[in-house]
Amino acid sequence: MGAHVRELVQKQSYWFIIEGPRRRKGKGITTMRALVLDGGVALKEVPMPKRAPGEALIRVLTAGICNTDIELQKGYMHFSGILGHEFVGMVEDCDNPALKGKRVVGEINCVCHRCAYCQMEMPHHCLDRTVLGIQNRNGAFAEYLTLPEENLHLAPNSIRDDVVVFAEPTAAAFRITEQIPVANNDQIVVLGDGKLGQLVAQVLWNYSKNLVCVGRHAWKLDLLRSSGIPVALQSEPIERGADIVVDCTGSPGGFPRALELVRPEGTIILKTTVAQPTAIELSIPVVDEVRILGSRCGPFRPALEALTLGTVNVTPMITESYPLSDAVQALKRAEAPDVMKVLLHM
Amino acid sequence: MGAHVRELVQKQSYWFIIEGPRRRKGKGITTMRALVLDGGVALKEVPMPKRAPGEALIRVLTAGICNTDIELQKGYMHFSGILGHEFVGMVEDCDNPALKGKRVVGEINCVCHRCAYCQMEMPHHCLDRTVLGIQNRNGAFAEYLTLPEENLHLAPNSIRDDVVVFAEPTAAAFRITEQIPVANNDQIVVLGDGKLGQLVAQVLWNYSKNLVCVGRHAWKLDLLRSSGIPVALQSEPIERGADIVVDCTGSPGGFPRALELVRPEGTIILKTTVAQPTAIELSIPVVDEVRILGSRCGPFRPALEALTLGTVNVTPMITESYPLSDAVQALKRAEAPDVMKVLLHM
Repeated sequence: MGAHVRELVQKQSYWFIIEGPRRRKGKGITTMRALVLDGGVALKEVPMPKRAPGEALIRVLTAGICNTDIELQKGYMHFSGILGHEFVGMVEDCDNPALKGKRVVGEINCVCHRCAYCQMEMPHHCLDRTVLGIQNRNGAFAEYLTLPEENLHLAPNSIRDDVVVFAEPTAAAFRITEQIPVANNDQIVVLGDGKLGQLVAQVLWNYSKNLVCVGRHAWKLDLLRSSGIPVALQSEPIERGADIVVDCTGSPGGFPRALELVRPEGTIILKTTVAQPTAIELSIPVVDEVRILGSRCGPFRPALEALTLGTVNVTPMITESYPLSDAVQALKRAEAPDVMKVLLHM
Repeated sequence: MGAHVRELVQKQSYWFIIEGPRRRKGKGITTMRALVLDGGVALKEVPMPKRAPGEALIRVLTAGICNTDIELQKGYMHFSGILGHEFVGMVEDCDNPALKGKRVVGEINCVCHRCAYCQMEMPHHCLDRTVLGIQNRNGAFAEYLTLPEENLHLAPNSIRDDVVVFAEPTAAAFRITEQIPVANNDQIVVLGDGKLGQLVAQVLWNYSKNLVCVGRHAWKLDLLRSSGIPVALQSEPIERGADIVVDCTGSPGGFPRALELVRPEGTIILKTTVAQPTAIELSIPVVDEVRILGSRCGPFRPALEALTLGTVNVTPMITESYPLSDAVQALKRAEAPDVMKVLLHM
């Protein structure tokens, strides 16, 4: 591990050299650039966000484009505003002096602490929540954003920006391990070789070596194969009877396929948010008494640990990086079949 | 309780008087009457079943018609053979002398004890299983049937035939309590006012009084209402945010309705085996992290106890009884909207 961390630190130094110092803004600035979804997407000059008490004003360093950003453009969640929910940034202003000037990542659900679900310790399901760049809250494809201080996690010094920006989707992968016990001999199938599928496969690979990731793209699967994780093309036969099948396909075909592969009393984890309805023969999960679990946002702490230790390796997944000024083009590129993660540098 | 049991015993005596002694067959008989599904259904004279070692030959006293029998006629499971899986009968012949001459009910899954799922202590999911009147095994709408001795449970003396014949579907209702903990303040919605819905509502009513059964038929709901169980017509507004929703509708609309009613991180139990595909918007259970559990056959012990104590009261659900000779007509009647349970007396 030590060698790996050293290598990351070296890479980070290199990164700073080729990137150069980042643009800084002084006080008294009233507008900023942001990628705004309002029907279509456009880069706009918008008012600087104002932090409420308990919130931090964060200068965004790097942001990641997620499939959800693409779904939002298509009308998912009926969102309008600044897109983006994966970021790393510097705290410019806040109440807590320990956070000021620190490099942070942030949980995306901003909650009320008062509603029934907050009281039941399920704050992610807060009835009055706003969600960064997804629901009633401006997001991270901008020079600045605000988030409650309680949502922030310090980014470990040893992880460079373009790695730690994966904290949010990696946390979403770790959510599975909060929801079900994963035994070290569990037979696991991860459906989908996209960004989330690869994160889930890597996270669960640390729990069970009886795992295969199934996808449609040989070049994407090769990224996992190079980490020693077994992979299979969708067209290849897969052993049925899996204990756990995770649907990360992002397509309506994922869940029916999961039903074919899971064993009786096995578990299907649904990670795919498909807007269109899926036709499902429900007698199969009834007769086989399958357990199906929806799964969304997860814990940042194990995610940051995995990114620090390199037990989840995201570097091969970064295909392209763009400055914020090219954000519209970057978002377009993120949809292309030859692309994995696209990053924005502010 | 004591008074209730006494009343049952009195009713039973009365029952024997009005029913009269049952027809007995002597040894050496080679054929019997049975309701056979083979494309269509017909009452036929078929060979007497022969018991294998470890099996019991059972003379059927009473059998119950289940919605699954109707689905089987429509092609579900591609079954052909003698229909019927809910029964009470007398053991005519077997290896175990303690069972001979006893009145029994029987579990319907006949398992191999060797396959992976039997080894994992999930015999209901045995890969080589036969299922009484459902899968590769002749059923109970006949004068005789055979079942492994290990499948049999003695029918308590105090329960009359037309009550104890509900053991199998009542066990299916109790399956839920094996799969999830049901707390005494859990908000529960049971969707469906049919036979299974009413059994599930009665079983779960013993766990939580924060329950409502939702159905389409005022007269069926009245049967539950008379036991003090809250009911609502499908058209009435129902409070959302249930901890547990059980779909017993037997219709494709049940699951989408369950998704509307369940709370985030709540549980949907699927009891409906609908052959036709259902269109489902899967992003809802993902965002709300809903748990969905298929649920099939259950434990006979608590079912027999509940039927004995009257904590599940099935008598109001018995609409009509027919002799086996009228089985074709009985099966037709069981589909009618003004009918709940139809019984066959052999």
